[in-house]
Amino acid sequence: MKYKEVNAEIIGIGSELLLGHIVNTNARYLSRQLSKIGVDVFRQAVVGDNAQRIKDAVETALERADIVITTGGLGPTVDDITVKSITDSMGRALVLDEKILGSIKRFFKERSLKMHDYVIKQAYVPEKSISIRNPVGTAPGIIIEYGQKTIVVLPGPPRELIPIFEKYVTQYLSDKYHLNTTIFTRTIRTVGVPESHINRRIKKYLAMRRPVTVGIYARINEVDIKITAKAKSERGAVRKIKKVENELLKILGDMVYGFDDDSLESVVAEKFRRKGLRLSVAESCTGGLISSRITDVPGSSRYFERGYVTYSNRSKVTELGVKETLLKKCGAVSRRVAIAMAEGAMVKSGSEVALAVTGIAGPSGGTKEKPVGLVHIAMATKGKTISVERRFLASRQDFKRMVSNAALDILRKQC
Amino acid sequence: MKYKEVNAEIIGIGSELLLGHIVNTNARYLSRQLSKIGVDVFRQAVVGDNAQRIKDAVETALERADIVITTGGLGPTVDDITVKSITDSMGRALVLDEKILGSIKRFFKERSLKMHDYVIKQAYVPEKSISIRNPVGTAPGIIIEYGQKTIVVLPGPPRELIPIFEKYVTQYLSDKYHLNTTIFTRTIRTVGVPESHINRRIKKYLAMRRPVTVGIYARINEVDIKITAKAKSERGAVRKIKKVENELLKILGDMVYGFDDDSLESVVAEKFRRKGLRLSVAESCTGGLISSRITDVPGSSRYFERGYVTYSNRSKVTELGVKETLLKKCGAVSRRVAIAMAEGAMVKSGSEVALAVTGIAGPSGGTKEKPVGLVHIAMATKGKTISVERRFLASRQDFKRMVSNAALDILRKQC
Repeated sequence: MKYKEVNAEIIGIGSELLLGHIVNTNARYLSRQLSKIGVDVFRQAVVGDNAQRIKDAVETALERADIVITTGGLGPTVDDITVKSITDSMGRALVLDEKILGSIKRFFKERSLKMHDYVIKQAYVPEKSISIRNPVGTAPGIIIEYGQKTIVVLPGPPRELIPIFEKYVTQYLSDKYHLNTTIFTRTIRTVGVPESHINRRIKKYLAMRRPVTVGIYARINEVDIKITAKAKSERGAVRKIKKVENELLKILGDMVYGFDDDSLESVVAEKFRRKGLRLSVAESCTGGLISSRITDVPGSSRYFERGYVTYSNRSKVTELGVKETLLKKCGAVSRRVAIAMAEGAMVKSGSEVALAVTGIAGPSGGTKEKPVGLVHIAMATKGKTISVERRFLASRQDFKRMVSNAALDILRKQC
Repeated sequence: MKYKEVNAEIIGIGSELLLGHIVNTNARYLSRQLSKIGVDVFRQAVVGDNAQRIKDAVETALERADIVITTGGLGPTVDDITVKSITDSMGRALVLDEKILGSIKRFFKERSLKMHDYVIKQAYVPEKSISIRNPVGTAPGIIIEYGQKTIVVLPGPPRELIPIFEKYVTQYLSDKYHLNTTIFTRTIRTVGVPESHINRRIKKYLAMRRPVTVGIYARINEVDIKITAKAKSERGAVRKIKKVENELLKILGDMVYGFDDDSLESVVAEKFRRKGLRLSVAESCTGGLISSRITDVPGSSRYFERGYVTYSNRSKVTELGVKETLLKKCGAVSRRVAIAMAEGAMVKSGSEVALAVTGIAGPSGGTKEKPVGLVHIAMATKGKTISVERRFLASRQDFKRMVSNAALDILRKQC
């Protein structure tokens, strides 16, 4: 088949999506994966567990797209009608797939669970289709050839959909359509600078057209800049992107902490590992979040010594040696107490670097002098201790996230 | 207008959705909000910043739905073509809304930012439409009457969309369509029991039809059961739901930890507050996550004393008094060390209850005797110490989540 641009439409099936009970993460996942193999997605749709609407959605999609991917509605209950609806709309018959039935029986046996009759429904597939065994569940993925077009029927739960798509469907589509382009995206990750500020600085890049486009995505006090290009190979796309990336990096400077899948904690982890330093953390208002983020990174035990969640004032005194007189004089949320916490943690733990945060997460606890959102962050090393004061107006959980970002960013810049 | 069932379709506009750069949280938010005012959603769609596809999507939706809500594509750049596309498809003219232009100018003035000419585009709206000032941005929300139908055009960023929808659109739609029903959902939250197990136990309820339906949603070692009913009032819906809820609670028993917005940590917080107990936590493999979850709950300082993140073996010895000989003999991940950690934390902190976890988060660090996923959890009180051993086969982050769930659940059941 001669190469041509191929496009796909994604149809999410399930009343839970229409009731707003869950977020449609499958649409995002599939769009990204299709991007990587150079397939454009021009439309996504969501319908409920309704035979007529499922048929309409699939039939309409087949008029416009080369590949139609459905997710959901493959369970064993009476509400799960995806397979039957699609099979009916194609005028085919449902047939029992003995191999899939066998793997479903094995699934229950391996888990010492009784297999009920209604589950057998999941082994029925359209005639002349390809079934893909579900490695973590029972419903198979199904590929249906429709001339030059392809219908891919996937289970709804992401942990079932993802392995089926990655291990089988991607390769199948690449082979069938001789896919030889890729849509490649490079993400530049920044922290601590508002989106509007970055927007102004890189305005001309945001207006760029093909072959390279630039988009800006705000998160909780982080901003991602995504550079996207379509090319025949990843190398070709990367070449197109590199020039823009280098120009952007010159403009953005120090606010950039990493790329793509980097997180602040993974970047800090790398620094500490490389320099052979050990870290301890003393947290009050972040309540353990900083330590938890640091230990999300595999291998963090190589540089993370220990964490103190000194939530009460008493614990700041007994665990970190903060003087009671200092607490009384300056209050727990003060520059001097943050410094005392950091230096106390460093001495007690024996680590080369210690971080401390103390602040007011809200919603209550603030005063006129020390409002909700105020935080002091200190970093102690053998040579010196530095401290900063910040204010984050946000919900309690966002506040914790922003403070942990600011604290990790200090480690990134100072160590 | 006589009461009749009203339905809506949601159309997300934006290439970032089709590239899979972001998740469509607006679709979920709007679906839930529409549910609350009794409006069914039968379809959702997503298209890119393409005039023809936007027009097609809106026109098709208008054939099937009473209300069409679009999100996104209201920015000031050349890619933002939602308003023009919709206006063209209705055969109307774009007119300058002077009030909106004034509020846009004020927006920039208040922030001491220069207002560029291209932003003026955002003040152009379809003739005979209603503009809604954006309280945190510049693009207005727009309501277009189309006979008995209504088109609602909203900005993409959730922090702009939500206040516009909540403060104006909800009331507008309720008034126009004399909405007097509500779709009410009650969520029963369970922990620690697999979805398949619960599925089997409540099978007949999952098969129920209107007026009450029951759905089951698996999360990371938690399962939510959602009971949904449509009625003329919240009270009427609750009455219909109550009967089913009570029957389900009898069947589910102790695995139920709460309802609706409850979290394990909020339920534990309530217990501790009521009983006047104080808690300390000693964590190894969860790295601070348990303390962080506990302190996510406002007012947790009333019962949460302190947390120890004893990530290194040395810190278990020096902070919690765990004997070096015990560590050498049994290893850090053992029942006896978990007990020693909990009792050490209780004594040192002076709290009435102390929790400890020690385990192997992976991906490395496991052995044949002590595989990745193994964890020991202990809870110490003045009277006794209990401990459990569990295994969680999951990614590093999921493992931490599951262990913190198991630990909090022990507090819930034992205290």
